[in-house]
Amino acid sequence: MVNQVERGDGTCQCKSDSSGASNSGGDSSKESSRCSTPVLDAYRSDRLRDKMRRRMESGDRWFSLEFFPPRTASGAVNLISRFDRMGSGGPLFIDITWHPAGDPGSDKETSSMMIASTAVNYCGLESILHLTCCNQSKEKITGYLAKAKHLGLKNIMALRGDPIGEDWEEEEDGFNYAIDLVKHIRSEFDDYFDICVAGYPTGHPEAESYEADLRHLKEKVDAGADFVITQLFFRPDTFLKFLDDCRAIGITCPILPGIFPIQGYQSLRQLVKLSKLEVPEEITQVIEPIKDNDAAIRNYGIQQAVEMCRVLLDSGKVPGVHFYTLNREVATMEVLRQLGLWIEDPRRPLPWAVSAHPKRKVEDVRPIFWASRPKSYIYRTQDWDDFPNGRWGNSSSPAFGELNDYYLFYLKSKSSKDALLQMWGEELQNEESVFEVFTCYITAQPNRCGHKVMCLPWNDEPLAPETNLLKDELEKVNRRGVLTINSQPNINGKPSTDPIVGWGPPGGYVFQKAYLEFFTSSENVTALLKVLKKYEPRVNYHIVNVNGRNLTNAPEMQPNAVTWGIFAGREIVQPTVVDPVSFMYWKDEAFALWIEQWGKLYEDESPSRMIIKYIHDNYFLVNLVDNDFPLENCLWQVIDDMFELLDAPPELHSEETV
Amino acid sequence: MVNQVERGDGTCQCKSDSSGASNSGGDSSKESSRCSTPVLDAYRSDRLRDKMRRRMESGDRWFSLEFFPPRTASGAVNLISRFDRMGSGGPLFIDITWHPAGDPGSDKETSSMMIASTAVNYCGLESILHLTCCNQSKEKITGYLAKAKHLGLKNIMALRGDPIGEDWEEEEDGFNYAIDLVKHIRSEFDDYFDICVAGYPTGHPEAESYEADLRHLKEKVDAGADFVITQLFFRPDTFLKFLDDCRAIGITCPILPGIFPIQGYQSLRQLVKLSKLEVPEEITQVIEPIKDNDAAIRNYGIQQAVEMCRVLLDSGKVPGVHFYTLNREVATMEVLRQLGLWIEDPRRPLPWAVSAHPKRKVEDVRPIFWASRPKSYIYRTQDWDDFPNGRWGNSSSPAFGELNDYYLFYLKSKSSKDALLQMWGEELQNEESVFEVFTCYITAQPNRCGHKVMCLPWNDEPLAPETNLLKDELEKVNRRGVLTINSQPNINGKPSTDPIVGWGPPGGYVFQKAYLEFFTSSENVTALLKVLKKYEPRVNYHIVNVNGRNLTNAPEMQPNAVTWGIFAGREIVQPTVVDPVSFMYWKDEAFALWIEQWGKLYEDESPSRMIIKYIHDNYFLVNLVDNDFPLENCLWQVIDDMFELLDAPPELHSEETV
Repeated sequence: MVNQVERGDGTCQCKSDSSGASNSGGDSSKESSRCSTPVLDAYRSDRLRDKMRRRMESGDRWFSLEFFPPRTASGAVNLISRFDRMGSGGPLFIDITWHPAGDPGSDKETSSMMIASTAVNYCGLESILHLTCCNQSKEKITGYLAKAKHLGLKNIMALRGDPIGEDWEEEEDGFNYAIDLVKHIRSEFDDYFDICVAGYPTGHPEAESYEADLRHLKEKVDAGADFVITQLFFRPDTFLKFLDDCRAIGITCPILPGIFPIQGYQSLRQLVKLSKLEVPEEITQVIEPIKDNDAAIRNYGIQQAVEMCRVLLDSGKVPGVHFYTLNREVATMEVLRQLGLWIEDPRRPLPWAVSAHPKRKVEDVRPIFWASRPKSYIYRTQDWDDFPNGRWGNSSSPAFGELNDYYLFYLKSKSSKDALLQMWGEELQNEESVFEVFTCYITAQPNRCGHKVMCLPWNDEPLAPETNLLKDELEKVNRRGVLTINSQPNINGKPSTDPIVGWGPPGGYVFQKAYLEFFTSSENVTALLKVLKKYEPRVNYHIVNVNGRNLTNAPEMQPNAVTWGIFAGREIVQPTVVDPVSFMYWKDEAFALWIEQWGKLYEDESPSRMIIKYIHDNYFLVNLVDNDFPLENCLWQVIDDMFELLDAPPELHSEETV
Repeated sequence: MVNQVERGDGTCQCKSDSSGASNSGGDSSKESSRCSTPVLDAYRSDRLRDKMRRRMESGDRWFSLEFFPPRTASGAVNLISRFDRMGSGGPLFIDITWHPAGDPGSDKETSSMMIASTAVNYCGLESILHLTCCNQSKEKITGYLAKAKHLGLKNIMALRGDPIGEDWEEEEDGFNYAIDLVKHIRSEFDDYFDICVAGYPTGHPEAESYEADLRHLKEKVDAGADFVITQLFFRPDTFLKFLDDCRAIGITCPILPGIFPIQGYQSLRQLVKLSKLEVPEEITQVIEPIKDNDAAIRNYGIQQAVEMCRVLLDSGKVPGVHFYTLNREVATMEVLRQLGLWIEDPRRPLPWAVSAHPKRKVEDVRPIFWASRPKSYIYRTQDWDDFPNGRWGNSSSPAFGELNDYYLFYLKSKSSKDALLQMWGEELQNEESVFEVFTCYITAQPNRCGHKVMCLPWNDEPLAPETNLLKDELEKVNRRGVLTINSQPNINGKPSTDPIVGWGPPGGYVFQKAYLEFFTSSENVTALLKVLKKYEPRVNYHIVNVNGRNLTNAPEMQPNAVTWGIFAGREIVQPTVVDPVSFMYWKDEAFALWIEQWGKLYEDESPSRMIIKYIHDNYFLVNLVDNDFPLENCLWQVIDDMFELLDAPPELHSEETV
């Protein structure tokens, strides 16, 4: 890549890359004469159609995933975890169907609108929201679109939807077909949204003819649609013929095949009925005999989908494949793995998951405290006008949203109350029972009742691979009441492609300062403070109790960068900081989780509840940073020294206490 | 240091340090609820009186230096180099006398105002501007003060000055005494300026009595002066008695002794006459016999000053000593060295000299191009409203001032035309003569006429110690027409206290990417571009000719950080970047220096002039960054490969040229 920059008149022109593409997104205007590009991933803020174009140019095939909104709040919690798991395989986008019966445009946790917003904002997934226009007023549709835009959604799948009742008739001036919606979006929102429309490889069941339906598709595209996703089909030739026919009549935009891996006999029957498709005989012949054997049908479905996708991709005419997941993950993931499209180790652009909300496109620094609760961080900062970029200290929006107890990600665990009681103890005897829960979580060993502790209020997932590097030390200290909730090892210049600690583009180097965060008793803190004097100025600490009493040696309360990376041709990136100011907001949340997630499992006034409350009221939350990242991490020695001091004969203690 | 931060009401309070000082500077208000402190040196923006207070609290004694404005422009150039040399010893401040006969408030290069502004803005020295009020209108004085404020001066030495003519009388409502000026400054500029006043250890010669003069001093301090510097004296007891007398009548501010190291018989006689002081007999007895032996008198002066300062400092009552330098450096530096006050290796807060202009207090990133011409950089960015902080990409003031030929630092060399001709050649034979000049500069060997090449148009000083690390390689490539003007080695985590490459507070680690910048022929560039393909993406390059034709592989034209540091409890600091946009501004300057400094030494149309013009018109300016800082610097290999390609038989060359 060689950029030519001519400058004859005293001004300088910057050219982004050899593709010659200009970023035409509405909110990506240049603030000044300088090139204002996000540092690590210049394409992060691209619109979906530009991402597709770039992938097609580079011959880099993609997949995408369709989901429908869940029925219940706990279904929503599960679907969001599924987004995270399936998002990790690297879909180019996902889409969320519009569920007219489910109050789809509302603020309910289960609405299409909210699920799509969650996917974009909290899971960082490029998302398309379906929208059906049949029987809807223009005002209503405009309202949905405005809301979607406000929530950071940038893509709409424009559909007619099923008419209500048998006696549907065209309304003059109303939305009768998807094309009306496409035109409406373009007329009301100009070029803001990328628009997808549906294609029917065998023709829409209500169309006069296959040819007439092709012409309708051409009209939808001409009206402003950016690309097409097709209805499911069972034979690759069906799609390839359709594709050729589309091209023949001048449809030039991307046309993506909709793939339906058969996952069960009943779901196939149901879908076929809804879509008015016929299952080819070669398939019926195979599955009818095994219709009661779910596993066999699923295996067949996987094989059939893989073969079909191979034919499509090998044709050279299909840049990406779209999956109807039915909100399940196993079959689709298996198909994608066999096709080699599933990205086993997706490159992380930053050490934390980047939100796909356009407002956050420049965000590249966060406090380390929410490392295990990134969705909570996004939620509490959703009203910020600016996001820190380059340096945390530059943030002009320091106010974190208040603690609330209702929100999906906020204080709820995705496990049921029963599961939590099994993991964290039906009954606690004393503080040591709590230490034991932490220790079992760290060691991944079953607790005394035989249940594995898969999560803690501060960690909704099992231990991260990176934290596993510290497992032995963590176990030791948790046993003695240093209740760790966050930690990272020091890293002195590992390649950015390191499978455990790497992030950012290849060819770079990543660094970390060792970090440890834990709850511990005030007795321990008294000893710790004495010990920490020996580690000045190497170790920075912040020690705070629930009332906000805060002890620190942080110089002038500045943020301390604890994760940073050096990349070719880039400024330094420092995505994670220990920020003294935001630690006070995190503290509220971290202490609240004791009561809200753990204490409330037990009856009011029960001994178990009182033990949790005692910890909440009396323990301190401590964080420690070892600034000397090239040396061996000294934080374990700090804790050892603290234990040694506590174990020493009493005359060695002074009288002071915290 | 333990900071306590209480937070009960949802807000957070930050406390800067244990001294409990609040920064009361007019322009240091907090922009938001966050602690907004410069990253590396929180005290950099402190006002002088706060710096003094902090040094007194810590028992850290200081020195300061007085200079007078020069008579000629070349005297100004010399004085400014002296500021740099004497500034490197770590004075707490310098002061510039007000020279009523020299148009002191004008924009002349030699005016008191401009010299003080230069010391602050370009040399980064905390400076006090003297101001005399006698025979001046209030409007005129207010104008001077407003101008001083505008230029970034923050401290005024308020003096009466000598009345013009014998028949001076007090004017009603006029400025009759220094106290009138002190009051005027406070009434017109509130607390903006720190004010210094003069003290007379033996009483002002015109005062009614010693006691009356003490009372006048008390009145000046009560009127708003922040500290006192005394007239010179010859015996330490004179000062110590005066100090006690001041304290006795309630003067509590710092009182700094003015030290005059005797430097010659005539200058002593003259000064004594002006100040109406008597030289004590013990001194007269020593110097009268040696009055024609300058060296002997100077040695005596040094010893006498050292002894006097020792008594003063040992008294425990003197926090700092002020030197009347008479614009000379040897004697004062020697006294300071013997006292142990001269800082041999001052810690650099950043790898480049920080300007003391309050507007630039947050500046902590600069392009590497002006590394050897920092004053030119400051000059060309003086109209910026904001300075880059944390990340270069954040700069909102990208416009560099235009190239001008008149300014002191801009295109002028501090050497005379004759000296330059001796160094760079009375007559050039061909391009190789130019290569030889560069080579002699690098090797510090005399040229063929026996003259050492001490500077080049792009480097006004001999090779920096850091560049010396690369000396052998630099010599080799310059001999062959790779005319290097800027370079740095790669550094992978050296201590911040490293004497050659260190900067910033102790306990940190500094890093660099290898950098090389040179002029070379288009033939060489053609070969270089082929070679560079092998080094993608490890090496970033920018290659530009005088017309602005620019070849680069920089990703999206982003800045590349080439110097950064990691410090305890701080965000990452990246003080030096290779910025593609500012490179185009630097290019104009770098090419102009060929003609303005070198070519114009020769007659129009002379062969020597034509050779320089040929290089100016046809060579390219190249910069290279090796991004792989942990590995051995590959830039020398790049140049070797280029030479190898050039040396290869012609069939290996392709036909393309730049």
